[in-house]
Amino acid sequence: MSHVVKKLKIAVIGGGSSYTPELIEGFIKRAPELPVSEIYLVDVEQGREKLEIVGNLAKRMLDKAGLNISVHLTLDRREAISNADFVITQFRVGGIDARIRDEKIPLKYGVIGQETTGPGGFAKALRTIPVILDICRDIEELAPDAWLINFTNPSGIITETVIKHTGVKVLGLCNVPVNMVNYVAKAYGVEMDRVYIQFAGLNHLVWGLRVYLDGEDITQKLIEQLASDENMTMKNIPGMQWDKDLLKSLGVLPCPYHRYYYMKDTMLEEEKRKATHEGTRGEVVKKVERELFELYKDPKLDEKPPQLEKRGGALYSYTACNLISSIVNDKRDIQVVNVKNSGAILDLPEDAVVETNCVIDKNGAHSLSVGRLPAKIRGLIQVVKAYEELTIEAGVNGDYNAALQALTIHPLVPSAGIAKKILDDILAENREYLPQFFK
Amino acid sequence: MSHVVKKLKIAVIGGGSSYTPELIEGFIKRAPELPVSEIYLVDVEQGREKLEIVGNLAKRMLDKAGLNISVHLTLDRREAISNADFVITQFRVGGIDARIRDEKIPLKYGVIGQETTGPGGFAKALRTIPVILDICRDIEELAPDAWLINFTNPSGIITETVIKHTGVKVLGLCNVPVNMVNYVAKAYGVEMDRVYIQFAGLNHLVWGLRVYLDGEDITQKLIEQLASDENMTMKNIPGMQWDKDLLKSLGVLPCPYHRYYYMKDTMLEEEKRKATHEGTRGEVVKKVERELFELYKDPKLDEKPPQLEKRGGALYSYTACNLISSIVNDKRDIQVVNVKNSGAILDLPEDAVVETNCVIDKNGAHSLSVGRLPAKIRGLIQVVKAYEELTIEAGVNGDYNAALQALTIHPLVPSAGIAKKILDDILAENREYLPQFFK
Amino acid sequence: MSHVVKKLKIAVIGGGSSYTPELIEGFIKRAPELPVSEIYLVDVEQGREKLEIVGNLAKRMLDKAGLNISVHLTLDRREAISNADFVITQFRVGGIDARIRDEKIPLKYGVIGQETTGPGGFAKALRTIPVILDICRDIEELAPDAWLINFTNPSGIITETVIKHTGVKVLGLCNVPVNMVNYVAKAYGVEMDRVYIQFAGLNHLVWGLRVYLDGEDITQKLIEQLASDENMTMKNIPGMQWDKDLLKSLGVLPCPYHRYYYMKDTMLEEEKRKATHEGTRGEVVKKVERELFELYKDPKLDEKPPQLEKRGGALYSYTACNLISSIVNDKRDIQVVNVKNSGAILDLPEDAVVETNCVIDKNGAHSLSVGRLPAKIRGLIQVVKAYEELTIEAGVNGDYNAALQALTIHPLVPSAGIAKKILDDILAENREYLPQFFK
Amino acid sequence: MSHVVKKLKIAVIGGGSSYTPELIEGFIKRAPELPVSEIYLVDVEQGREKLEIVGNLAKRMLDKAGLNISVHLTLDRREAISNADFVITQFRVGGIDARIRDEKIPLKYGVIGQETTGPGGFAKALRTIPVILDICRDIEELAPDAWLINFTNPSGIITETVIKHTGVKVLGLCNVPVNMVNYVAKAYGVEMDRVYIQFAGLNHLVWGLRVYLDGEDITQKLIEQLASDENMTMKNIPGMQWDKDLLKSLGVLPCPYHRYYYMKDTMLEEEKRKATHEGTRGEVVKKVERELFELYKDPKLDEKPPQLEKRGGALYSYTACNLISSIVNDKRDIQVVNVKNSGAILDLPEDAVVETNCVIDKNGAHSLSVGRLPAKIRGLIQVVKAYEELTIEAGVNGDYNAALQALTIHPLVPSAGIAKKILDDILAENREYLPQFFK
Ligand SMILES: NC(=O)c1ccc[n+]([C@@H]2O[C@H](COP(=O)([O-])OP(=O)(O)OC[C@H]3O[C@@H](n4cnc5c(N)ncnc54)[C@H](O)[C@@H]3O)[C@@H](O)[C@H]2O)c1
Ligand SMILES: NC(=O)c1ccc[n+]([C@@H]2O[C@H](COP(=O)([O-])OP(=O)(O)OC[C@H]3O[C@@H](n4cnc5c(N)ncnc54)[C@H](O)[C@@H]3O)[C@@H](O)[C@H]2O)c1
Ligand SMILES: NC(=O)c1ccc[n+]([C@@H]2O[C@H](COP(=O)([O-])OP(=O)(O)OC[C@H]3O[C@@H](n4cnc5c(N)ncnc54)[C@H](O)[C@@H]3O)[C@@H](O)[C@H]2O)c1
Ligand SMILES: NC(=O)c1ccc[n+]([C@@H]2O[C@H](COP(=O)([O-])OP(=O)(O)OC[C@H]3O[C@@H](n4cnc5c(N)ncnc54)[C@H](O)[C@@H]3O)[C@@H](O)[C@H]2O)c1
Repeated sequence: MSHVVKKLKIAVIGGGSSYTPELIEGFIKRAPELPVSEIYLVDVEQGREKLEIVGNLAKRMLDKAGLNISVHLTLDRREAISNADFVITQFRVGGIDARIRDEKIPLKYGVIGQETTGPGGFAKALRTIPVILDICRDIEELAPDAWLINFTNPSGIITETVIKHTGVKVLGLCNVPVNMVNYVAKAYGVEMDRVYIQFAGLNHLVWGLRVYLDGEDITQKLIEQLASDENMTMKNIPGMQWDKDLLKSLGVLPCPYHRYYYMKDTMLEEEKRKATHEGTRGEVVKKVERELFELYKDPKLDEKPPQLEKRGGALYSYTACNLISSIVNDKRDIQVVNVKNSGAILDLPEDAVVETNCVIDKNGAHSLSVGRLPAKIRGLIQVVKAYEELTIEAGVNGDYNAALQALTIHPLVPSAGIAKKILDDILAENREYLPQFFK
Repeated sequence: MSHVVKKLKIAVIGGGSSYTPELIEGFIKRAPELPVSEIYLVDVEQGREKLEIVGNLAKRMLDKAGLNISVHLTLDRREAISNADFVITQFRVGGIDARIRDEKIPLKYGVIGQETTGPGGFAKALRTIPVILDICRDIEELAPDAWLINFTNPSGIITETVIKHTGVKVLGLCNVPVNMVNYVAKAYGVEMDRVYIQFAGLNHLVWGLRVYLDGEDITQKLIEQLASDENMTMKNIPGMQWDKDLLKSLGVLPCPYHRYYYMKDTMLEEEKRKATHEGTRGEVVKKVERELFELYKDPKLDEKPPQLEKRGGALYSYTACNLISSIVNDKRDIQVVNVKNSGAILDLPEDAVVETNCVIDKNGAHSLSVGRLPAKIRGLIQVVKAYEELTIEAGVNGDYNAALQALTIHPLVPSAGIAKKILDDILAENREYLPQFFK
Repeated sequence: MSHVVKKLKIAVIGGGSSYTPELIEGFIKRAPELPVSEIYLVDVEQGREKLEIVGNLAKRMLDKAGLNISVHLTLDRREAISNADFVITQFRVGGIDARIRDEKIPLKYGVIGQETTGPGGFAKALRTIPVILDICRDIEELAPDAWLINFTNPSGIITETVIKHTGVKVLGLCNVPVNMVNYVAKAYGVEMDRVYIQFAGLNHLVWGLRVYLDGEDITQKLIEQLASDENMTMKNIPGMQWDKDLLKSLGVLPCPYHRYYYMKDTMLEEEKRKATHEGTRGEVVKKVERELFELYKDPKLDEKPPQLEKRGGALYSYTACNLISSIVNDKRDIQVVNVKNSGAILDLPEDAVVETNCVIDKNGAHSLSVGRLPAKIRGLIQVVKAYEELTIEAGVNGDYNAALQALTIHPLVPSAGIAKKILDDILAENREYLPQFFK
Repeated sequence: MSHVVKKLKIAVIGGGSSYTPELIEGFIKRAPELPVSEIYLVDVEQGREKLEIVGNLAKRMLDKAGLNISVHLTLDRREAISNADFVITQFRVGGIDARIRDEKIPLKYGVIGQETTGPGGFAKALRTIPVILDICRDIEELAPDAWLINFTNPSGIITETVIKHTGVKVLGLCNVPVNMVNYVAKAYGVEMDRVYIQFAGLNHLVWGLRVYLDGEDITQKLIEQLASDENMTMKNIPGMQWDKDLLKSLGVLPCPYHRYYYMKDTMLEEEKRKATHEGTRGEVVKKVERELFELYKDPKLDEKPPQLEKRGGALYSYTACNLISSIVNDKRDIQVVNVKNSGAILDLPEDAVVETNCVIDKNGAHSLSVGRLPAKIRGLIQVVKAYEELTIEAGVNGDYNAALQALTIHPLVPSAGIAKKILDDILAENREYLPQFFK
């Protein structure tokens, strides 16, 4: 191709995240194909210190790499967004303490408390929705051609909110699918690019319908191996073996988050046990983070420290940079993205967001047609999508009834009565972040 | 209309049921519009005694009414079906003892055990499917124009099995919708025909989307009243108040069986308590039945005894005779029937069976178009339909994987692990009734 | 039912129509079940004289019947609409001269010129759309609970315009389906109520999928008879035999307007021939009308004169009064109405208007589910629906491109080139009625 | 990738086609990536001489290229198919004389006569269907894993027949889309790989919904240019300018065959004129072919002669070899293929075949999701698809009614009466090739 690629401005909302060095490392590795000239790291007052620490590490990393990319640290979101080419969102409203509350409230009622799945993810969505809508208003005004690359969880719900309620060009990302590919590649001792998985589903509820190695369908073989082995675990999910009979009868590759649905009972026990001994996952992460930021402060540190891996989020920057590069370079390769369904999965509403294989080019993500899902996996995805729709309705309008129904129909919640208790606790404990409910 | 209606032959499979006198009473009341000439009550060897008792009561009732209808008691199903106009199925494979086992197995694992909903209904479906398919082979051969009116539970699943796997003209019935109409009529102190409800959903999972009194939409008013009152309980479901907030946020009228889904926890506690003290519902019914049959034996008894009401099944014969009469008389009125979806509810597969308002005429049931369901009620119905589809697959083919997935995705079952335990118990304890699994 | 029905106010837009006496006759016949107290006949300045003549005849008819219904003649539409219960629209923008132009322009280019089908109907739609939208603004403001019963042709397009672009409760009517029932009844020498037809399609493009006599399916028998006989012709369509082989291969009952599509060539020849000798249908109607109004003027005339029948529009008031009465009396019977599809016909867009069997009650029309249409009739209906959609887009927005595409894809128009010529003539000759194109 | 690619056996049905040298040239160019070891050219008795001539040229070409590929000439189809990896079908039942008849019969009745579109294509389909079904029986038995790459026209109909009535893995090809890309590339003076078009539609009725140059959407710009220029013409379609206003109002890129629909009148005139002077296209081709075969016979000729270009079929081998290579090498690039819809285009039946952009890999073609089509292009495609469905029904079952309806609803046929005349002529003149109609 002969066309000249323009210099890119990138805005990162939630710039103080401990993942930022990973992202920076990604831009460094891709420098030949990704002509970034400016990176704006944006944060809020509470994150000012983190932003400073992370931002300075980022500068040292880029200096070492000898790249002419300027890094700007700012609390002024509008300045960052203005004329950006890509806006990456990786913020956490309420910080880690809100997450810890999200984990603890459901547990109080014998329900799984998890960052993104179930009532925990629901609470996170309610806090995030007003902020993402504000960000989108800014993008509509200041950078209408920018791509919003959303990482903020629950990523599918947030992406669907943006699609339904704003005019912003958005793609929702998640590192789960790429980690599943990575897992299979490792299991077979091959490079990731020799493994191809046909994904379909929702964010954190995605299935590998077919798995290929060098183009050969290895799905059944893999399932059988998995049904015997230790397996696929990502650090931010309490590790646990898949139920052997479940896997065999399923016949497709579930994602790690499926355990919360299929193994509700053992997952809950495990969570309770951990909460008592080492703390919830949020509490563990909080400690890990504190240590990480101590490392980051070291003015001699000029690369991503290996300790970041403990944090989870593996292949996070790989996912982001792959996507951005395919857009910039009009690559037309296949990646897994959260996009508007528009009939790709016939069992879900046309205006829902789904996570599925897409061809990525300069004009965004174009989903491959999935058709109809087998009954085995169809029902779960449909009920969770209904939950997501109601969560968005609740999050955008501050609608109590929609919120109560969202939690009630969620497969992890055993009854309307408990849904109500959890909801009332969530509203009470997050009051400051839920302007839509408390106007 | 001027056409002459021919004399009808009715075959009742499971003729020894204690409900038969109710059915006979129905035919007596409708005699002017329903020209029945022969009723064949069919049963199996184990039901021979019940058949005798019930059959003789039936004869006495018809004699008293002075109707020229001959009643035949037989164990020869083919004789009964041959040239029948209507075949009514109300049998219970394995009898009440099988039902009691269906209730107890799930309870052992802390799961609701219920005749038609959840693992109990699943087990009943597996036992019933081979028998209904046999019956249909007979109908195809001996009475290809007959209407099969199915009451055997789980009625929706059995109807879908017939539609997918045979060429028989079938309509699935249930007395739940008509009881909901009755309930509303009573609540407002009016005749049933002044209440009209737009139903949509699945058998034992049907919603009243809109409720009208004399054509006025009273849905919201009714919901609010229900959210305060004692309410809608049919005798075969442990009575319990609806959760007030649930009802309000739902905005439509749920059916009594929704409690198992929306109030899993309290329903389970109630069941456990009852099982310990008075016995499961099946055990109670067994006692009630024994008493009923003592009454039925009385050669002076020549009408339906009031004690039958304790048995549940209210308006059972009303439902059946209404349907048959509208077919015979080409009435074109609206009744709630289980029929092939064919797009009536856009959120469900076209080949699924749904329970919804239909126009009934000589050519069967023609569903009214429902369109798309609100997210609040869509997800539950979709996941239960996926469970039903898998149950049919398992029941027809003896497919263990489909069976395990059916139970696993059922909202009442907390995990694949527990699903497997329940499934294995069901298979072991029903071995003699499950030829499809043990060939 | 015990509820008291309130006295009704009816507004008739286009009150000066020669059909008004028919409508009045209908109200007289239905008086026992239709408690009309006020009828407002509305017209525009150009129709003042017709309004006077027709209005006075209406008054004499009601007087003779001894009914206490007041008739108001007015040019003030808002007064008429204010608090009306039903607004009936039967106006013709541009009058009969516009119709004659609609017939002649296409003929100039060798294309069928017809009041409602093809370029003629297209032109009529463009003229009508701005007026119907104005009327709806009035209804939204002055009678938001009123039912709009639309007769103005092209009735399906006008109804779809109202549904897509206003909040008015609308039902679109046409006398074609009821005439098809009538035709079959006559063919079999029975009363109309013994014939039932399952209709599906679009306005003036509706099929009788199944025809029943006393509940027996007589479709094939009827088709065979039709394939031999003289048949189904309504006065406003040049009479002509159906092609025998066409009918047999079709296997369903077409409506008279299908001839324009299936027998384009002979219909065109017939039209050309008539245009040369007796004038276009519009020219004939103009003459008939002049004579009718002479009759109407006669102060001794106090009933609908038999000569009205020459005018076409058979069973027009039967259709209207049936519908109104079923709404008022919450009858829940089945009538054929133009309503929003919402999945009733799976092969058409959900937001399209279709003409199909509906249950009529106090809350309007509820379509029966049709499912998928056979390929034989699916394609035509789909391409005509696309034409209708584009016509609405053109008519609402004055969009030239949409207009050109609408005409181009219409099956009666042989090419884009001719479409353009016809379109340009239509725009030029209707300039005063097309504010949306000439702002 | 590390996997070893096995040596390929290719069977070409209709090996005597004058296009075969083009195909051979393709294999020669791709030799590095396409490890072909055996090519079987199959023909029938009538084509024996052509097969000899073409086959010997093929051998000389491969010799010159120094490739170790053996070429077999045979009338034994089963030998050729046995264990083949790819079966390419490019045969013409009845030869060029049948084509000439297909062109002349419709013309007799004032209807466009064309090889693939309208009644001509319909007749070709009827002749081809019995043969392709036979071929598929052979493939099912002798090479069940083979890919059938179908070029035989009407390619979409033939592919749909195979998908609906056999178990063969089939992909339907056409050189129209790639020629449209080529045309755009030439218009902009760039290489083809810089142009990307989002195609959707049916074979010979495919639209370029969006056209990109280096990832920039140039659709509107291109449309405007086309609306002024001489344009897109492939040699086998009488060249003619697009109607300027049509193009602008359409807003998408039509394919050359759209002219038959949008410009029926001028196309017909052109055809008539040519038929009178130079003969029908078939007659011209017959002459060109005769000359070509004279050239082919020359034992010194060992490359594709430039004169083949006159024959049409530009980029024919490019299309075939691209597809085969992407399958063999698991390339996962995007090509335009005829595949089962399965929801890719929501406006068409799920089991229909559509022509659309697909990702090609070892497991075949995976369509990109198209969603809903704009009304402007939706109707035409739907009615033509209904025609195709009926044609397949007629072609497989010899169903006269389906055949008559297929022709009747085709947009090029003005009436059922003319459809019948054409149909009867087609049946009479093709009797020997239509065993399904004359059993
Ligand atoms: N989709 C994925 O694959 C994936 C993987 C990892 C993390 N995540 C998500 O990324 C986000 C960040 O995770 P983290 O652990 O680094 O969180 P964090 O708690 O460190 O938050 C990141 C930063 O966001 C800032 N922030 C909070 N509110 C903000 C606002 N309104 N505007 C701008 N910045 C704001 C915080 O001050 C903090 O510095 C989370 O939403 C997480 O769920 C997604
Ligand atoms: N759909 C509804 O509204 C509704 C209401 C009440 C009961 N039911 C259903 O009706 C059925 C009968 O209920 P019941 O309580 O009377 O049961 P039951 O145990 O009394 O059984 C009825 C009869 O069926 C006979 N039977 C068993 N297997 C048979 C076979 N293979 N062929 C013929 N007869 C056979 C038994 O011997 C018995 O006499 C059950 O399936 C129940 O779920 C449905
Ligand atoms: N759907 C059916 O079955 C059916 C049958 C017959 C007629 N129609 C339709 O009914 C309508 C009337 O037909 P007609 O032959 O009596 O027509 P017409 O020409 O007599 O028109 C009726 C009246 O409408 C008046 N009018 C014109 N513009 C008006 C406006 N803006 N507001 C109020 N009144 C206006 C005219 O002055 C006239 O008096 C037509 O649209 C016709 O297509 C429908
Ligand atoms: N899809 C496209 O892009 C495209 C382009 C060009 C041609 N085509 C199609 O390819 C086909 C061949 O075109 P052509 O002009 O070379 O035709 P052709 O008339 O030369 O026929 C090719 C060969 O097929 C042979 N044949 C006939 N019946 C046969 C049978 N039953 N089995 C095996 N061989 C048989 C003939 O003897 C002949 O040698 C046609 O169907 C044409 O429509 C498709």
